[in-house]
Amino acid sequence: MSSNEEDPISKAFLGLAECEIETNKVEKKIEEYRLTQLKPIYTKRDEIISNIPGFWKIVLSQHNDFANYIRASDFKYIDNIESIKIDWINSNNFHIIIKFQGIRDDFPEQTIAKKCQRIIKEESDDLDEDIEEQIISEKSEIVWPKSYNHINPELIEDKTTKEGKKNYRMGMKSFFGWFKWTGLKPGKEFPHGDGLIQLIVDDLYPYCVRYYTEAQRDLADEASDSGSSEDEPLDLQE
Amino acid sequence: MSSNEEDPISKAFLGLAECEIETNKVEKKIEEYRLTQLKPIYTKRDEIISNIPGFWKIVLSQHNDFANYIRASDFKYIDNIESIKIDWINSNNFHIIIKFQGIRDDFPEQTIAKKCQRIIKEESDDLDEDIEEQIISEKSEIVWPKSYNHINPELIEDKTTKEGKKNYRMGMKSFFGWFKWTGLKPGKEFPHGDGLIQLIVDDLYPYCVRYYTEAQRDLADEASDSGSSEDEPLDLQE
Repeated sequence: MSSNEEDPISKAFLGLAECEIETNKVEKKIEEYRLTQLKPIYTKRDEIISNIPGFWKIVLSQHNDFANYIRASDFKYIDNIESIKIDWINSNNFHIIIKFQGIRDDFPEQTIAKKCQRIIKEESDDLDEDIEEQIISEKSEIVWPKSYNHINPELIEDKTTKEGKKNYRMGMKSFFGWFKWTGLKPGKEFPHGDGLIQLIVDDLYPYCVRYYTEAQRDLADEASDSGSSEDEPLDLQE
Repeated sequence: MSSNEEDPISKAFLGLAECEIETNKVEKKIEEYRLTQLKPIYTKRDEIISNIPGFWKIVLSQHNDFANYIRASDFKYIDNIESIKIDWINSNNFHIIIKFQGIRDDFPEQTIAKKCQRIIKEESDDLDEDIEEQIISEKSEIVWPKSYNHINPELIEDKTTKEGKKNYRMGMKSFFGWFKWTGLKPGKEFPHGDGLIQLIVDDLYPYCVRYYTEAQRDLADEASDSGSSEDEPLDLQE
C-alpha cells in the first residue's frame, strides 16, 4: 500500500480503522452488559417455565425455522424435550442445556450440556474483510434411542459398506448427530450445526414466550374457526 | 379469562407476563447503555469522515437498499450530500442531520435536521400483541431545488387539477418530500418514510465505513478485472 501518514486522507483512513477496532471492543462490552442485565430475568423465567407442562414442545413445534434443521422422524424425541436453558459463561462461551424426558425401553431421561464458543474466523487472508465470527462446539455425550441403533454412529460396525455409510450419514444428520457437531469437520458433521446453535441461543431461547403465545393464539383461532369458543388464547401481556 | 391465581399454571402465566415486561425495560436500558458507549466513537468518526471527500456519495451509491427509497432523478442531489450525522437525545429520540452542498443557480448549501421519535404503537387493541414500536417525525424546512419548482408542493398553485395532483404526488415521493414525512398521514406522504429513517439510523450510519470499504473493494475488483492493477482497495483493518 502506498499510504503516507503525512497525507490527510491516509491519516483519515488510519483513524477510521482505529474507530472500527474501538467499535468492535465496545460492541463486546455491550454484549457483556446485556447478559449481566438479562441473566437474572432468564433464571427467573426458566423456573416459571418449568411449571408449564409441554411448554418447550409447543415452542419447538411452533417455530418454522427450527423444523428446517430437524428430520420429521426426530420430532418424536424433540417432543420429549422437557427444558432448554442457556448457561452463559460470557457472551462468547455458553452451554445449551437440554433435558429430555425418557421413553420406556427406548431412551433414558437425560440432561445434556452442549458447550459452544464464538470465535473469530481465522482463515481470513483478505485484510479488507470484516471480522467474521464463527461458532464451534464440543462433542457432547448423549445416549441415543434404541430405535436409532441402526444409524447410531457408535454402533455401526462396518462404515465402509454402502449400507454402513448410508446409515452413518443418516445418524449424523439426526438431532442426536447435532450433539456431536464441533464445526471443525465441515461436510462430515450435522449440516448447519452452527445455524441450529445460533437459532437456539439468539432466537428460540430469548423469544420462547413469544412463540408460546403465538402457538396458543393459533390454537384459539383454529378453535374459533371451527365454531367452538373454548380455549381462549392465553394472555401473557398485562 | 378463567384464570385463577391459586392455580399454578395461571400463576406461571402471570409470572411470565411480568418477566416480559421486565425484559422490555431491560432492553431499553441496554439501548441507552449502547448509545452512551458508542456516541463518543461516532463523534470522533464524524470528524474523521469530514476529511474524506465524497465519503457519503460513495456510501449512498453503494447501499442497494437505500436506492429503493430514492427516485433515480433524485440522485443528482443525493450526490451532493456532504455529511450525515445522527444526534441522539436518547434511544427513542434522535435527529438525522444532513448537510447538502449547494448547486449554483439551483440549490443552496444547507444543513437540515430531521427530528425523529420511536413511540409505542397505540392502536393495538389485541392484548396478546407484542409491543410494537413505530417511528414518527416532524416536518423539516428544506429549500427545494429550483429544478423541482414544478413538483414542489409549496409552489403548486392548483392541487385540484389532474396535472397539479400528479406533480404534487411526484414531489411528495421525491427525497425532498421525505423531509416533510411525519408518519401521521399514511398514504399521503413520502412512501415508507419510516423505513428510510430506520435504514439511515440502524444501518447506513452505524455501518457506513463498511459500505465505504466495500465500494472501494468493488472499484478495485473492477480495475483488476480490466487488467489495471492500480487503485488498490483501501485497507481499513489493521
